[in-house]
Amino acid sequence: MTEFARTGGRAADQLRPVRITRGFTVHAEGSVLIEFGQTRVLCTASVEEKVPPHKKGSGEGWVTAEYGMLPRATHTRSSREAAKGKQTGRTQEIQRLIGRSMRAVFDLKRLGERTIHLDCDVLQADGGTRTAAITGAFVAAQDAVGKLLAEGKLATTPIVQPVAAVSVGIVEGTPLLDLEYVEDSACDTDMNVVMTGAGHFVEVQGTAEGAAFTRAEMDQLLQLADKGIQELIALQLAALAG
Amino acid sequence: MTEFARTGGRAADQLRPVRITRGFTVHAEGSVLIEFGQTRVLCTASVEEKVPPHKKGSGEGWVTAEYGMLPRATHTRSSREAAKGKQTGRTQEIQRLIGRSMRAVFDLKRLGERTIHLDCDVLQADGGTRTAAITGAFVAAQDAVGKLLAEGKLATTPIVQPVAAVSVGIVEGTPLLDLEYVEDSACDTDMNVVMTGAGHFVEVQGTAEGAAFTRAEMDQLLQLADKGIQELIALQLAALAG
Amino acid sequence: MTEFARTGGRAADQLRPVRITRGFTVHAEGSVLIEFGQTRVLCTASVEEKVPPHKKGSGEGWVTAEYGMLPRATHTRSSREAAKGKQTGRTQEIQRLIGRSMRAVFDLKRLGERTIHLDCDVLQADGGTRTAAITGAFVAAQDAVGKLLAEGKLATTPIVQPVAAVSVGIVEGTPLLDLEYVEDSACDTDMNVVMTGAGHFVEVQGTAEGAAFTRAEMDQLLQLADKGIQELIALQLAALAG
Amino acid sequence: MTEFARTGGRAADQLRPVRITRGFTVHAEGSVLIEFGQTRVLCTASVEEKVPPHKKGSGEGWVTAEYGMLPRATHTRSSREAAKGKQTGRTQEIQRLIGRSMRAVFDLKRLGERTIHLDCDVLQADGGTRTAAITGAFVAAQDAVGKLLAEGKLATTPIVQPVAAVSVGIVEGTPLLDLEYVEDSACDTDMNVVMTGAGHFVEVQGTAEGAAFTRAEMDQLLQLADKGIQELIALQLAALAG
Amino acid sequence: MTEFARTGGRAADQLRPVRITRGFTVHAEGSVLIEFGQTRVLCTASVEEKVPPHKKGSGEGWVTAEYGMLPRATHTRSSREAAKGKQTGRTQEIQRLIGRSMRAVFDLKRLGERTIHLDCDVLQADGGTRTAAITGAFVAAQDAVGKLLAEGKLATTPIVQPVAAVSVGIVEGTPLLDLEYVEDSACDTDMNVVMTGAGHFVEVQGTAEGAAFTRAEMDQLLQLADKGIQELIALQLAALAG
Amino acid sequence: MTEFARTGGRAADQLRPVRITRGFTVHAEGSVLIEFGQTRVLCTASVEEKVPPHKKGSGEGWVTAEYGMLPRATHTRSSREAAKGKQTGRTQEIQRLIGRSMRAVFDLKRLGERTIHLDCDVLQADGGTRTAAITGAFVAAQDAVGKLLAEGKLATTPIVQPVAAVSVGIVEGTPLLDLEYVEDSACDTDMNVVMTGAGHFVEVQGTAEGAAFTRAEMDQLLQLADKGIQELIALQLAALAG
Repeated sequence: MTEFARTGGRAADQLRPVRITRGFTVHAEGSVLIEFGQTRVLCTASVEEKVPPHKKGSGEGWVTAEYGMLPRATHTRSSREAAKGKQTGRTQEIQRLIGRSMRAVFDLKRLGERTIHLDCDVLQADGGTRTAAITGAFVAAQDAVGKLLAEGKLATTPIVQPVAAVSVGIVEGTPLLDLEYVEDSACDTDMNVVMTGAGHFVEVQGTAEGAAFTRAEMDQLLQLADKGIQELIALQLAALAG
Repeated sequence: MTEFARTGGRAADQLRPVRITRGFTVHAEGSVLIEFGQTRVLCTASVEEKVPPHKKGSGEGWVTAEYGMLPRATHTRSSREAAKGKQTGRTQEIQRLIGRSMRAVFDLKRLGERTIHLDCDVLQADGGTRTAAITGAFVAAQDAVGKLLAEGKLATTPIVQPVAAVSVGIVEGTPLLDLEYVEDSACDTDMNVVMTGAGHFVEVQGTAEGAAFTRAEMDQLLQLADKGIQELIALQLAALAG
Repeated sequence: MTEFARTGGRAADQLRPVRITRGFTVHAEGSVLIEFGQTRVLCTASVEEKVPPHKKGSGEGWVTAEYGMLPRATHTRSSREAAKGKQTGRTQEIQRLIGRSMRAVFDLKRLGERTIHLDCDVLQADGGTRTAAITGAFVAAQDAVGKLLAEGKLATTPIVQPVAAVSVGIVEGTPLLDLEYVEDSACDTDMNVVMTGAGHFVEVQGTAEGAAFTRAEMDQLLQLADKGIQELIALQLAALAG
Repeated sequence: MTEFARTGGRAADQLRPVRITRGFTVHAEGSVLIEFGQTRVLCTASVEEKVPPHKKGSGEGWVTAEYGMLPRATHTRSSREAAKGKQTGRTQEIQRLIGRSMRAVFDLKRLGERTIHLDCDVLQADGGTRTAAITGAFVAAQDAVGKLLAEGKLATTPIVQPVAAVSVGIVEGTPLLDLEYVEDSACDTDMNVVMTGAGHFVEVQGTAEGAAFTRAEMDQLLQLADKGIQELIALQLAALAG
Repeated sequence: MTEFARTGGRAADQLRPVRITRGFTVHAEGSVLIEFGQTRVLCTASVEEKVPPHKKGSGEGWVTAEYGMLPRATHTRSSREAAKGKQTGRTQEIQRLIGRSMRAVFDLKRLGERTIHLDCDVLQADGGTRTAAITGAFVAAQDAVGKLLAEGKLATTPIVQPVAAVSVGIVEGTPLLDLEYVEDSACDTDMNVVMTGAGHFVEVQGTAEGAAFTRAEMDQLLQLADKGIQELIALQLAALAG
Repeated sequence: MTEFARTGGRAADQLRPVRITRGFTVHAEGSVLIEFGQTRVLCTASVEEKVPPHKKGSGEGWVTAEYGMLPRATHTRSSREAAKGKQTGRTQEIQRLIGRSMRAVFDLKRLGERTIHLDCDVLQADGGTRTAAITGAFVAAQDAVGKLLAEGKLATTPIVQPVAAVSVGIVEGTPLLDLEYVEDSACDTDMNVVMTGAGHFVEVQGTAEGAAFTRAEMDQLLQLADKGIQELIALQLAALAG
């Protein structure tokens, strides 16, 4: 279907090899290393028995995310946000996206007045860090919730359904699933799609990097994303069953 | 088509009254007050005869945007970003969106080594400030370019085509065009769409605030957006012809 | 009386055309656009039903001000304070001046434990932005107080008397009232005067930009300021009666 | 003339004991400890052989000032600005005032392309720190210039005339010269006056802390200030002759 | 020799199991995961072909380090420095220590005008993160230098000798080598020692957390450190030979 | 014993002239100017009747320190930390060291729920500012505690024993006590030692600036430090007896 040659002969509609390692670090309630090919993101879920001010006394919990990238996760070293004293707009955009995506599958009432912090730190970047982060954060959150259930702090799970994310894009006229860095840099259109296990959209963020894209192209991209996310959710469930 | 009663009996697929006032302030190369109903954004275009470091020596220009909201543009006063010492994640997300949208219709080579700064400041907010900002910024940019052409600093326009934006969303099951604040607060799905005069997409940002949305709903929303943006582009051109 | 030719043949002791538009925006308890010629400042008054820590439990209220300038309010674009992450010394100096000036005519006991925030944002600058801000903020504050009285939250007004401000200066040897930008840049002495309706001083801030000024010159400037402020207070009252 | 009893039986128009110690520290080109009674400010002048960007290539020099207060210079400890990560509005206001006052007596052309930094650090505060700072900074600047002359880096002095400052105010109806802290806290009107050796005004900053003040009161205050500044300038010259 | 029971029956003078994994990530010129028991630090070395301002034109290079800890590297989540907008004093202290330690074994002249950035990021913390960081950073630096040699950018290595670090401390009267977190929390005296391959000291930082320590205790600790560091340097060399 | 010629013929194991002036400023509960030769540090102790959050309700007090240097305390002016908006790593390192050193001789339980803030501000620097600061801060703390005892707020002193600090180093092969600036710049090894009146170590911080140092050198340095600190403690006690 594609003329654009992908690394390792990958098909246009094929995900990179995905690896999900639970319990990657020992302290967090959930700790998952997720790999989309060369992209590696450590996602931890931390449970805190209190909520931010806007939720105090509401009977509801909160789920929030932070995102970071180690300075040399990338081809050339980028400066450390902590040293510069502020997070870039890109970082803030991504962590807001992860937070919204996770809350979309949480019933905050059932969570009770506690917070789940999802920290997504990119150890190595090769495109798709935000979609890997969302996909991995879900597994970490699931583990943290599992622990709360096991400890009897929760009677029923507040997680309503799975959520995962993938990037899609058009490179040299070919719609591709799960872009790696060289594809991402070359693409005309870049779209990040977040979907639930039921196949519904949580977020769609499409950007024309080069030429604006047509409705027909958008339809192709959404279809690719749908295929990829179904596969990712199967991989999440397999990892959680493991 | 809708059961949800909109302010002033507005139809589900109807824009709010749009007003575009050019030359709203005197110093900027382009200065436009744009009103989407009660939402009022002042968009100025400032030409600077130099480029940021990453464009130096490239022969290309740069187009960038900043966004702000006066503290009492909203129903209750929000704190002043300058006083707090930082811009919120929301502000950064919006100004990055405006910048990308404008660059999508600029040929940076033809602009030459100069920068156009678009400042979009919300004087009064009632939903849709970012889409009004994009729509107004285009007119301001056009005026700034017109001035460069008139002064002989540019031989041909670097603007390739018009660009405009609108929000769409689903409120109580009804897809609506150009959400005002009460609708935005109540909606399940919120989507901001940026399109060119040719009817192609520059940005699509859809978010499920409540339930995740289906492909069919997405299709309805994109169709509404398409209708709205065609009308907005006609209004931009009329204002520029005026 | 003067040899220095002012814009539009204005006399040395003449104010620029002053326009006061109440209800310029809809959300704030008081919202005034004040124009001193080409200088335009939007002054909003926001009522908050609590006080800062140093007033808690005192039975007294608080009145405070913030000042800002849109990046392209000026001839050349200045950088956005929110983006730089801090307010300049000039901004802080001005907002402290506005705050003190407003508190000078407020009986904070009668205000009760609430705060009035005055936001003065310069949409267009042509000299005298701080004096326009004080003059406009008084009208906005009056409107906010009027609303509190109408709602029965206050039984009697906490505003003791009107307050207004004007700049005066010596340009090429001629004392001038209400300097516009080109005069301000050229002047040797620049003085901002804040006075009450009773003709008493709230603030006098005179600065020798070039040569130091004599006592005789100071007397001339104070007399000019007195004349201008009487006229401004008449204009405030007329606007409030309107 | 006064009914208000001052510390140590001081007359209403009497300065506190003033002590000026040159060479208080060893590294700076000028280093002066100035004491107005219990107020003690260390003023150093540092010469730097370059100018800030806005003066580059102008052939002119620059004179600038910074102001600080040690955390326990005051009755109760105030937090350290360096630890909080920003200077207060008050600090910025004061250092801008000192800088303008010093530049008023400098011929920047004759200074050549170099900068004199005046650092005024309050070791102990008892009212009048900014006026002591200006008065002391002049002596430190004079010493630094003396060194440049001695080294042959300057042929003629860029200092045109002396400058000094004093506070005046009305306490319980009595106009007082050189307010100490308890007077400053109790006063209705507080005025800081900066004057040259020729008896002309460089800055007049009067503020009604309580009731607004009349023209007659202002005249009394300016007269007191004039008397005090003449005495301070005599003390500066005596110290420099010493 | 000890009465204090260590995890896994470890002897008082025994290191935790140390693992050094080279090439842990793919982009950096050197990338080492170092593990001291449960403590895991990712150390990357990045070569940049320029030097900081203070080394420009000196013909010398620079070696510098930054340190960070993922929010959930620890037992309870700590807040993200990038989000708070500043690095803690502890972080700065540690990264300065790492930088000095590495420069102690570099001949900066032989490095030429380039910079090696060492980023030490703690993925999991269980005591001794700074000593693991130094020990791992040396291996990463060695790999980066190896690459420069292989590419012909360097003719001879600028690394003079190996360097490693270990913590020692007194817990309940017993001197222990290589403290893990529970020991570190319980210790009276905590000492971090950095030594070269030649057995000389680069840094000794001893702190009495509880009672002050005697000269005899210090001697015992230094001896333990010496033993540990000899073993660590053997492990570094083995890893580099691997 | 030494071949390196020290200023004023000082012996290698000799302290500079030390002067301790109590009551240097009037407001603080303890205020000490300490001079180690040309190094002069003002140390104030401020008592606050509350504790930081981590000590609330613990029944224990807190002792903390802050450190600063006036911009022109040094040979060339360094920029003001308050103006730059952050403290350097060096400043934070030093103030943490001072705080730990002081807490080492305080029984926080006996202090009760109050805080002693020690502010150490360098008026003039000539090497050894941190050790002078610790030595002076102890005297200021003692004075503050004396005041609390005199006022009956404390029944018994929370100070367990004296503490003082000194620097030692090896310059051109010679171990020297109490380095002044030129020695500090030239030294191969620099060590700061903090000891109690009982002759035990609170902190030992040794750094090889040039060549790494041997165990034998370290022993020599520790012996020198021991001698110097015994003398400093005698001087503290003499000053407190005065």
